[in-house]
Amino acid sequence: MPPTTRTSSFLAACRGEAHDTVPVWFMRQAGRSLPEYREIRSRHGFEEVVHTPELAAEVTLQPVRRYGVDAAILFSDIVTPVASLGIGLEIRPGVGPVVDEPFRRPADLDRLRDLEPDEDLPYVLETVRILVRELDVPLIGFAGAPFTVASYLIEGGPSKTYDRTKALMFSDEATWHRLMERLAGITLASLRAQVANGASAVQLFDSWAGALTPSDYERYVQPHSRRVLTELADAGVPRIHFGVGTGELLGLMADAGADVVGVDWRVPLDDARTRIPEGVGTQGNLDAAAVLAPWEVVEARVRDVLRRSGGRPDHVFNLGHGVLPATDPDVLARVVDQVHREGRTDGTVADG
Amino acid sequence: MPPTTRTSSFLAACRGEAHDTVPVWFMRQAGRSLPEYREIRSRHGFEEVVHTPELAAEVTLQPVRRYGVDAAILFSDIVTPVASLGIGLEIRPGVGPVVDEPFRRPADLDRLRDLEPDEDLPYVLETVRILVRELDVPLIGFAGAPFTVASYLIEGGPSKTYDRTKALMFSDEATWHRLMERLAGITLASLRAQVANGASAVQLFDSWAGALTPSDYERYVQPHSRRVLTELADAGVPRIHFGVGTGELLGLMADAGADVVGVDWRVPLDDARTRIPEGVGTQGNLDAAAVLAPWEVVEARVRDVLRRSGGRPDHVFNLGHGVLPATDPDVLARVVDQVHREGRTDGTVADG
Repeated sequence: MPPTTRTSSFLAACRGEAHDTVPVWFMRQAGRSLPEYREIRSRHGFEEVVHTPELAAEVTLQPVRRYGVDAAILFSDIVTPVASLGIGLEIRPGVGPVVDEPFRRPADLDRLRDLEPDEDLPYVLETVRILVRELDVPLIGFAGAPFTVASYLIEGGPSKTYDRTKALMFSDEATWHRLMERLAGITLASLRAQVANGASAVQLFDSWAGALTPSDYERYVQPHSRRVLTELADAGVPRIHFGVGTGELLGLMADAGADVVGVDWRVPLDDARTRIPEGVGTQGNLDAAAVLAPWEVVEARVRDVLRRSGGRPDHVFNLGHGVLPATDPDVLARVVDQVHREGRTDGTVADG
Repeated sequence: MPPTTRTSSFLAACRGEAHDTVPVWFMRQAGRSLPEYREIRSRHGFEEVVHTPELAAEVTLQPVRRYGVDAAILFSDIVTPVASLGIGLEIRPGVGPVVDEPFRRPADLDRLRDLEPDEDLPYVLETVRILVRELDVPLIGFAGAPFTVASYLIEGGPSKTYDRTKALMFSDEATWHRLMERLAGITLASLRAQVANGASAVQLFDSWAGALTPSDYERYVQPHSRRVLTELADAGVPRIHFGVGTGELLGLMADAGADVVGVDWRVPLDDARTRIPEGVGTQGNLDAAAVLAPWEVVEARVRDVLRRSGGRPDHVFNLGHGVLPATDPDVLARVVDQVHREGRTDGTVADG
């Protein structure tokens, strides 16, 4: 059985409810930094792992066993739901999602039908069910936000500048919004199904939204992420909303309907707090590269993040982005111990 | 002869002195977006262009002729000075700078001797001299800042996460500072020689500094960029200090000794202004991808940047990053016309 609010510091923090110890997990805690993950991947491809519930569950569990983190996150990819619709999308190791024929014209919208999670993603839902049985910490459901998924479909792969995505957005706003509506529907269906099968929280990854100006985010992206987050409200689970380079967007990302906003390492957490309304928590924000440093340096930086979180009960300790492949798992284990030892909350939400 | 402050709106804006019309130029205005540049590159490699004064001068002049921009910037690469020391660095088209044997150990410091611009970069200085004769607008000298150059040397090429750079910084601070001191000396020597040969301003590109937290920037980077900028003060030319994703660093980048701070598109210009002390100007910040939009959209966005610059005489209109290769030159020409038509200053520096 998944833990209740009473026993989960992670869920309590997401809800801003009283608890003693700051919870901690790491984005991409499952993955290439772990030898036990690399061992599995030496025998199975990335997509094979995602599509095989026993393997996907196993790699999700690996960091929970090793680190004693306060939450697990479904091992999957941002594009897994949309890829399940048969649009010619492949995840290439070392590259990322690659789309054979990128989305560029209004007619490409027809390539996106509605997602039927039971038929399209049975392996994801089975993974969720296995995990909920096996875990003694909450499982976070996982989805890419409409903008970030759209950027892969339109660019055809990873991008530094998102030219084609922005060009479509700016030059054919009607097609843009129709694409985003379809992707929002797919994201929502995937997250609802994950919650229905036992996920205790969700994280919406709008990893690349930070490429946008605040006014473009507000006009072209926020309405669609808001639809996902607000329609999920009735599922009753905390909603975390995360992106990289989003220092100027934190307030807008909160306002889209998040319970918790992910903060990347660029913005000191106490500064970030002033940009996020009361009633919405924070998650982050140790530089993922900082854990490559000697332990004394790491320790001081963990302490700095805890200090800047101000003892508030609505903070979840995490990195500012995903665990880097070069990370030493022993250092992450020490970070978890330190957060659990030193991260005390004062039990109430103070004035920002 | 290069124009004096009296006749150059660009130099007046850099100095916060009275002038009527907002000046405009574009980072990477010379380059792949121009058919006349692609024509030259169809016959000459990138490094050949940089190393051949007649060609480097020609491609620098192309956008000045075509657009009527208020400044030219030396066509070069961020790593050109350090590459001239024979460290096994090559600029690969479509990839960027690649270092055969990346810098990882203290012994690698010995690979960086002092730069002697007259001997190491004679082609750069000859290019500057040709340009100063040919141009009727100021020439901006060009250099990579120590951190950004260091990131190429340490990573061995372009990076998304700068893990190895940060790992060296955090784990061997003494070696880090010695490397940065050497790179600062090289940057300084290159810029001084460009000014001695006639450049009327300089721009220090710390393109990737935005990957750092403010406190890391302050500790590991700012002292070295400050040395470059303050030792250049006696050269008497305006110093522009630019980076991408530097919303949290704007004040620190100004404080390093800049006359003008470059602002990327993520931070609305009026917000950016509140982070930069009075006495320091701004440059930017139209999203480089915005010019891929239909003209009505571009026009409204140009107007928005001008509005947010508040009629201050210490603003230089530019993009938030370099011109994208897919850009239509005709659109940039219209942007220049619009800025010259609509960008009026009120002649005095208002309170921030």
